[in-house]
Amino acid sequence: MDQSQTISAAQYFFVYNAFSFTFATMAATTLFLWLSKSEVAPPYRTALVISGLVTAIAAYHYLRIFESWQAAYEVSGTTVTGTGNAFNDAYRYVDWLLTVPLLLIELVLVMRLSSEETYSKATRLGLAAALMIILGYPGEVATDTGTRVLWGTLSTIPFLYIVYELFVGLGAAIKRQPESARNLINNARWLTFASWGFYPIVYMIPFTSFEGPNVETALQIGYTVADIIAKAGVGVLIFLIARRKSVAEYGDVEGNYPPQEAAAMARH
Amino acid sequence: MDQSQTISAAQYFFVYNAFSFTFATMAATTLFLWLSKSEVAPPYRTALVISGLVTAIAAYHYLRIFESWQAAYEVSGTTVTGTGNAFNDAYRYVDWLLTVPLLLIELVLVMRLSSEETYSKATRLGLAAALMIILGYPGEVATDTGTRVLWGTLSTIPFLYIVYELFVGLGAAIKRQPESARNLINNARWLTFASWGFYPIVYMIPFTSFEGPNVETALQIGYTVADIIAKAGVGVLIFLIARRKSVAEYGDVEGNYPPQEAAAMARH
Repeated sequence: MDQSQTISAAQYFFVYNAFSFTFATMAATTLFLWLSKSEVAPPYRTALVISGLVTAIAAYHYLRIFESWQAAYEVSGTTVTGTGNAFNDAYRYVDWLLTVPLLLIELVLVMRLSSEETYSKATRLGLAAALMIILGYPGEVATDTGTRVLWGTLSTIPFLYIVYELFVGLGAAIKRQPESARNLINNARWLTFASWGFYPIVYMIPFTSFEGPNVETALQIGYTVADIIAKAGVGVLIFLIARRKSVAEYGDVEGNYPPQEAAAMARH
Repeated sequence: MDQSQTISAAQYFFVYNAFSFTFATMAATTLFLWLSKSEVAPPYRTALVISGLVTAIAAYHYLRIFESWQAAYEVSGTTVTGTGNAFNDAYRYVDWLLTVPLLLIELVLVMRLSSEETYSKATRLGLAAALMIILGYPGEVATDTGTRVLWGTLSTIPFLYIVYELFVGLGAAIKRQPESARNLINNARWLTFASWGFYPIVYMIPFTSFEGPNVETALQIGYTVADIIAKAGVGVLIFLIARRKSVAEYGDVEGNYPPQEAAAMARH
């Protein structure tokens, strides 16, 4: 990050408070999802556990990002000076490498396909997501435009495959979902797509006419908003979907359904 | 905050201890609500989970506020001097942005309306609450009276909508509540209104003849008391309401009710 031109105190505190807000949001969502595990039928509990893992991992990284931000600047009154400690943006990539595959897996799990379908879709989508993040990184740290464009383009290939799977591959499965949950699943799919579509835009900011402090502020706030929507927003949707499907399929979310039902569930 | 005129040691420690007290209160209420989840019937458990989230988020922010207060002042003997590190009041707004919508959602959940009603009321009230906080912030950080009044007035519009919904919109639903819980729900509604009505008063303190250290102390103690009533106080009421409704509707709060009851419950 360009330390020669430092940000204003207002910009510093805006980003500072956004990071603290995001930590609180992610941690709160994690607790909500894990405490709500018993409020959905057994086949949907793993989806809540994993959705909570995504926000828990994000909470950890936002705490680190928050501390790294504090260490990078010295604020006294209204003057902000760079301390020379670089702000470690790599925490974001490390976070995405773990959370983005899990985000796709939670989407697959809440649809409750056959165990074979679940395994194959979760594996293929998870690997594509990891590949997308790994290919994006060399471009993120590159100093020249050529390299940035090259890796950015390469990482778009797995991204397009994921979009294809979400909108075509899972299309048939979505039609099989109970009426009451179908809209929510569709929202979750679109929310995932919309929030992810945002990352490439931020990735491209360095090519725009924006400069120095404004780029840094726009970039940090941009990634933060996208993370909240993609992780906490989708996580809450997963809970609502799991809850509605539990009611539609078993009536009793506590899971006190007839033995043959239970057996059928266990087979999945 | 005005650092030129610093507060007295007595004022410093009064606020310091109030922050520590509030952290303990919020954390204790969180544990109480979550540990009591199994003491209410299933339809009321999400209300307890969310009430506990509100106090958990507040506990986190009071810990940060406490640390920020310590960092802002240097105390030696009875002399207090500003360190130059600004006291980060924005933590309050960041907290409200998360907790105020959740506070309204916990009120809606404990009334146990149909899932459609719950979803629409929770969404509308949640968004209005977030809007109220967002519109208030530019005024809070403004240095001139004009800007403060403008944004203060704008944020009053969603506030009035919320009051309307609480007292008119939910009126019919409250009449449908079991006799034993109706008064408590009414109290929760009034406690919410009364404690929130306090924030605009504190917001207006800078226009009064109060000055410097006294304003700062009055403001911090004022917000702290309002937060305890609105979050911990209402949270405990939510538990009492959930408990009484569980008994009134199912007799057995453990949820061992006849299957048709269970199915009926789950549908909500």
